[in-house]
Parts: sequence; C-alpha cells; structure tokens
Amino acid sequence: MNPSTELGTEVLLPRSKEEGDDFVADFATMSGFGATEAGGVERQAATAADAQTRRWLAQWLRERGFRVKRDRIGNLFGLLELIPGAPYVLVGSHLDSQPRGGRYDGAYGVLAAAHAVDRIRRHYQSNGVSPSVNLAVVNWFNEEGSRFKPSMMGSAVYTGKLDLETALNTTDASGTTVREALSVIGELGEEDVFGTSLAPAAYVEIHIEQGKILDKQGVDIGLVTSTWAANKYEISVHGAQAHTGSTEMADRQDALYGAALAVAAVRELADRYDDRLHTSCGQLTVYPNSPVVVAREVQMHLDLRSPDDSILAEADEILRRQFAKIEVKANVQIEKRHAHTWAANFYQKEGVELARAAVNDLGLSNVEIRTRAGHDSTNMKEIVPSIMLFIPSVDGISHSELEYTHDHDLCNGVDLTAEILLRLTHGHLAEQRAQ
Amino acid sequence: MNPSTELGTEVLLPRSKEEGDDFVADFATMSGFGATEAGGVERQAATAADAQTRRWLAQWLRERGFRVKRDRIGNLFGLLELIPGAPYVLVGSHLDSQPRGGRYDGAYGVLAAAHAVDRIRRHYQSNGVSPSVNLAVVNWFNEEGSRFKPSMMGSAVYTGKLDLETALNTTDASGTTVREALSVIGELGEEDVFGTSLAPAAYVEIHIEQGKILDKQGVDIGLVTSTWAANKYEISVHGAQAHTGSTEMADRQDALYGAALAVAAVRELADRYDDRLHTSCGQLTVYPNSPVVVAREVQMHLDLRSPDDSILAEADEILRRQFAKIEVKANVQIEKRHAHTWAANFYQKEGVELARAAVNDLGLSNVEIRTRAGHDSTNMKEIVPSIMLFIPSVDGISHSELEYTHDHDLCNGVDLTAEILLRLTHGHLAEQRAQ
Repeated sequence: MNPSTELGTEVLLPRSKEEGDDFVADFATMSGFGATEAGGVERQAATAADAQTRRWLAQWLRERGFRVKRDRIGNLFGLLELIPGAPYVLVGSHLDSQPRGGRYDGAYGVLAAAHAVDRIRRHYQSNGVSPSVNLAVVNWFNEEGSRFKPSMMGSAVYTGKLDLETALNTTDASGTTVREALSVIGELGEEDVFGTSLAPAAYVEIHIEQGKILDKQGVDIGLVTSTWAANKYEISVHGAQAHTGSTEMADRQDALYGAALAVAAVRELADRYDDRLHTSCGQLTVYPNSPVVVAREVQMHLDLRSPDDSILAEADEILRRQFAKIEVKANVQIEKRHAHTWAANFYQKEGVELARAAVNDLGLSNVEIRTRAGHDSTNMKEIVPSIMLFIPSVDGISHSELEYTHDHDLCNGVDLTAEILLRLTHGHLAEQRAQ
Repeated sequence: MNPSTELGTEVLLPRSKEEGDDFVADFATMSGFGATEAGGVERQAATAADAQTRRWLAQWLRERGFRVKRDRIGNLFGLLELIPGAPYVLVGSHLDSQPRGGRYDGAYGVLAAAHAVDRIRRHYQSNGVSPSVNLAVVNWFNEEGSRFKPSMMGSAVYTGKLDLETALNTTDASGTTVREALSVIGELGEEDVFGTSLAPAAYVEIHIEQGKILDKQGVDIGLVTSTWAANKYEISVHGAQAHTGSTEMADRQDALYGAALAVAAVRELADRYDDRLHTSCGQLTVYPNSPVVVAREVQMHLDLRSPDDSILAEADEILRRQFAKIEVKANVQIEKRHAHTWAANFYQKEGVELARAAVNDLGLSNVEIRTRAGHDSTNMKEIVPSIMLFIPSVDGISHSELEYTHDHDLCNGVDLTAEILLRLTHGHLAEQRAQ
C-alpha cells in the first residue's frame, strides 16, 4: 500500500531554477567561512570560523522571518511558527567541521533544512492551507567531537543523554571549557528552547552519505534504516620516561612502543570480520614527545563500529586479551576506559516509509542504507520519530578536504527535505503510525 | 709510567666542609628554577625557566669576578683570565632540560665547572704560581634538542659543524625561531666569543652517567673513552584523511597504522643485536589527531645508536626493507630523512690518561665507559683535546624526573674537575701529548 496515494499526496511546486541557483550560491558563501586552500573547511566547534558560520546562518534566518534562539549548550534554532502552540518538527544537522574537514559534512544538512523550511513558508503564504505543526531549523553544537568530546554533544544534551553541566565543563586540549568557548563567541544561550512549551514532534536530517553505496550504484537518495553500533574507548598507556640513547633496551618501559602494538592490534582486529567491523585509532598523543626521550605516557582514542552488537562485544573481549599480552611484551600498563557507546538501532519504520513515498513521488531513485557514521539523528530518534536521509558523496570520501557532492544532488536533497516537511506539517507521520 | 708522578703532581687542598656545603646549597637553589612537583625540572631551551637559570648563573659568576659573555647562538661563558692573551680551557655542560627532565642532566656539569674554576681562582690568588692557560665556564645552548632540533646545537655552531644562520632560523613546534626565543629572554649575544683572540685549548665536561655501570659496580668515576655512533631520522608517514566509522577498511590509507608498524619494527630491530643497538621513537605527532578521523600524516623521530658503525649501517638497510613492506601493508608512503648523525668516536687518549691520573691521586675508583648518550664534548673533541667524565646516577635513570645522584658523588665530581683543571693550567695535557 503506497501511503502517498492513500493519504492524498501534495507535492510542492517543482523547484524553480532560481531556487536551485540560490541554494548553490548560499552554499558557496557558507563554504567560505574557515575555507582551506585544498577546498575544505576548518571550523571546529566554537572556534572563530564556526562562529562566523553560525552568525551568517542566524542572519539568513532572521531575514526570512524566523525567530532565532540558542539553548544552553549552544544549539542554534530558527523557529517558524505556523500554528501557535503546536509542536515543532525539527530539521537540521551541524555547522561545525573536523580539522581540515570537508565543506559538505553537516553544513549541507543545515542549509538544506533552512532552504526547505523557507520553501514551506512561501508555500503556506501563497495557499492559505492550515498546517498541524510548526517547523524549526536546527544547528546542533559540536557534532564532530574533535575539539570537545564526545561527538554529537549538542543533541545529546538536548535529548537528555548527556548532563548539561558535564558538557559545559568539558575542556579542549588547551584547557578551555565548552562554557568559555561558547561565551567567547557569544553563542551560549540561556534557555531550554524546547524544554517545556515548544515540544518536538519529529526530526528530519539530510547528510552526505560518507560511504560510496549511492555513488557506486548511481542512486539519488539513501533511506537510512538503522545505525551501526559504536564503542569508543579512551586508552592510556603508562610507561617510564628515560633516555632514548643510554637506557638499556631491557630496562625500557616505552609507552609509545606499547601504544604502537595496540594501534596495530586494533587495526588488524578488523581483518577477522570482513568489513563487518570498522576499527580505528585517529587520535594519539605522546608525553613528553621529545626525540631523545622514551615516552612515559601515551593517550589515545579507539573507535570500533559494527552493524552487529555481538561483534562489538566479541571484539572487546579479544582486545582485552591482546592488551594483556602487549602489557607484558612492552613492559607497560594499559588503562582502557569506555568513553562513549551507542547500540545498533533502527529508525522508526513509519518515517522510512514516509520518506520513501516522498522520494518516489519526486521521481528519485533510492536504496536503504545502514549508517556507519553517527549523526545527531542517532540521539533524536530516541525521543521522537526521526527520518535520516543521504545524498551521494563522490567516492564516499569523508572527513577530508576532498569531500565532494554534485550540485544536482544537493538540490535533490533540498527538494526531498521540503517535500517530507510538507507531509509532516500535514500530519502524515501521525497517520502512518496509526496504521 | 704514571704521569702524575713523572710530571710532578699538584693536588689541591682537600675540599673543605664549607666548599662541599656551598656546592650542595647552590645546586638546590639552581634546581628550584623550573622545578616540577615530582622533583625534576622543566626548562627547555630558551624558555622562561631556562632564562631564570642562566641569569642566576651569570650573577653567580660575576659576583666571583668572572667576565660573562654570550655568543651569537646563546652559549653563555664565564671567563677567568689568569694570563692575558693565553688560550682558554673550557669547562661546562648545559643548563637546559628535557620536558619534565631530571635536575642533574647537564646542570650539574655547569655548576661543577663553575665551582671548580672558582676553586682554581682562589688557589692562584693564594699561592701566586703562574698558570699557562685561562679558564672559562660554559653553558652550551640547547643541548637537549627537545624544543629545537638538533640537539647539541650551541656546541655544534661553536665548533663549525652547524651553520649559525641555519640554527637561528630553526623553529619549535609553535613556529618560534631560535633567534626570537633567545631575543625574548635577552640571551642572544653579539660576538664570536672565541672566534679569534680567545682560542680554546682544551675542553672538560662532567656529567651524570645516564647508565648504571657506575651505580651497579659501586665505582666513583667513569672515564669516557669514546661515544656510541648515532643515526637520527625524521620520518613522515603519508596517508589519506578519512572517517573512522564510515570508510571501508580496504579503502583506508591510515598514516597512524603505518607509523605504529614502523615504531614496532624499529623497536624490535634492537632485539637482533643483544644491546649493541639501541633504538627508539620518542616523538610522534599525528595530523589532524581527531578521534573520528583516520590520520592523513604522522611525523616522527627515530633514534638509533650503537658502539659499532657497521651495526648502524646494517640496521639502516634492514629498516629500509621493512619500511617498504609496511608501505604496502598499511597503504601509506613512508619518507625517511637523515636528520643528524655522529660516528663512533674516541676521546683523545692523553685526556683520558690525564683524568685517570687525577682520579687516582684523589683516591677515587674509576672505570672506562663508552657513552651511549651524546654530549657537547662529542662536538668539542673534534676541535680540541676533550675530557669527558661521569659520576654515578642511581639506577641509571635519565631524562626523567626520577634522576638522582648522591651528594658525595656530586662533590667528588667537583673535586676531580678542579684537579684536572689545575693540571691543565700547568700544561699537563701538552706534556702528555708530547710523550
């Protein structure tokens, strides 16, 4: 049964050439904030470049009649009230980037949300129909987690998974807290935007795929059905500081040697599971990090992901045994702390079906995808029905200045987001759930 | 034939209790500059703590009638002119430390030199005999090489092994040049102190052993006969930045995985040579170093040392082959640059014999040692006869806050330095060489 026919489909007017051009032009302007020479962006959370991008978005929203608000963890909202007192459908992603990251990751989803909601605004202005919910564009604070850990911080606080004070007191490598960093750029809000009166009804997020399924298969849209599970660990390797030249080899307690064995073990663990387990160490810091000093300590961050929770549990046990062997071999102590975790989890089926109907009605091709990357929707789907959409990314390149998505795919994504929002404002999701 | 009897030995007056107490007190004062909680010091080259220590030493020297000078690479000299126009015997070491280093490494040798020369000054004031050379205490700039590479920078420029401009333009991790750092602390001198008129005649350096031969065997003094050879390499591992979660394992070009395999290979190379090869990686920096980003690049510094040049050459060839395999396994490129090297090399035999005679006449026990660590004397012995002496270090701990040497060993070292300097001012070394 095709819900779009059963529920009575309303498709927005086809995108005008001007609407497409505006989006591409706005995206180019936005990509100038924190732009790197190699075509990427460098705007980690609450840096000057992040602040520039946020101010530009707020201005864009205000100019179109949105009410702009910031909550106490620096999430930025652009509210479009269509029906006073009705709940809000949130739509957005994040403007912050990895160090030397790509211009599409996150930022595309925020701008697509803004353009889509603005299209809905113009639609309602011109046809007078009554929607059943309000809309809000959202830019979640610190999705990337490179400067402040954990990642997806803003949505975690919003959804109650992370304590506000804990988040605000988190420090970056130089000791600056989230509270200080947000205050400095003037982005620390004072209210619980959606705490009581403005209840969220649903969430929509569109993002580049960060994988190459769509690009390889030549498909327009990925309908995200579930997430991979992830385990993240903070590891400390403890050795003893010594002279690289004079200290006898047998006496060394070389923290970096221990860490190197651990990095190799973690990577090679993935070989057992034929791409059903992704493992990585991307962050490793050596103390004191002098060329002639055997390291006394290494801090590192491990990232393990799988579509299957039981694989993660098994990998955890294998690592425990391997780390015990490394401790003996390198004469070090390895301390392993669980930093952050999320289970393999499904997006609400009614959301996937609503999105599939909209994709079909727009004449776009689609495929279901399980996302290996975390997104703010991973948090949001715990509290409200959430729809996660992907557009293609050339060669699936991600967290890299080389990230690239074609303009026609960017515009398809805006169209689809607008179409889904339109259906949500008509209560389609509620009807779907009742089926 | 015992040179001390043949040449007519003059032993200084036995150390008074006051002289010993003064040394220990001065050493404690000096160890307060940049002191760390765990009993070490943190005073990397041309930092504020290094500057404090240098100013304190300069003041100490001036108060006792030394003329204080700085050369153009920030070496600090305290000149004691006994015979106008005669060449100088230099004696000293370095005041800079590793990050969280020990209080004895280098600093002891500078203060021992100052106290020894001052004792000679008082000796000549009271007995009126004419010496044949002048004496100068020296604090070599940046021996440690942790902030600015290479190590032994000041003595390398002084001896013409390193170009002055190259050294001054060397930057630390934050981009500050040696020239700027020395200017900021007011320690950039303007003259070639020993360029023409003040020619050096010999060099003496005393240092803690940084090994445990003396401590284990209960011997008072190490007579250093030669250095181990060292090869130091700068390594860049080039990969491609990517997402730790979403990127398929087979597509990864993980620079940190490649670096980890290299660190392990370098360490395990040493196992083939039964402590005749010391290998280490103490410095490793990851870019961009984010927990959810596969590293695009790793920079690291390798340190290989051996008493045997041919072992180093063989190790170099083995590493070349292993790195080629790692490049394939980790899908990365490894770039290896020779950063710094010194061959296994002998101290002048006449200097060792002069020192042995002085040690014997003072009733101290001794053993010959080949040093595995580099010292400024490694540079100085290329241009003048040089004497290198070790005192015991408990458990041989080095480049660590836990470094410790007993006060009686510190005082023995000052006595020996003074005794050797006295013989040098009497021309003993020249006579020894003529034998």
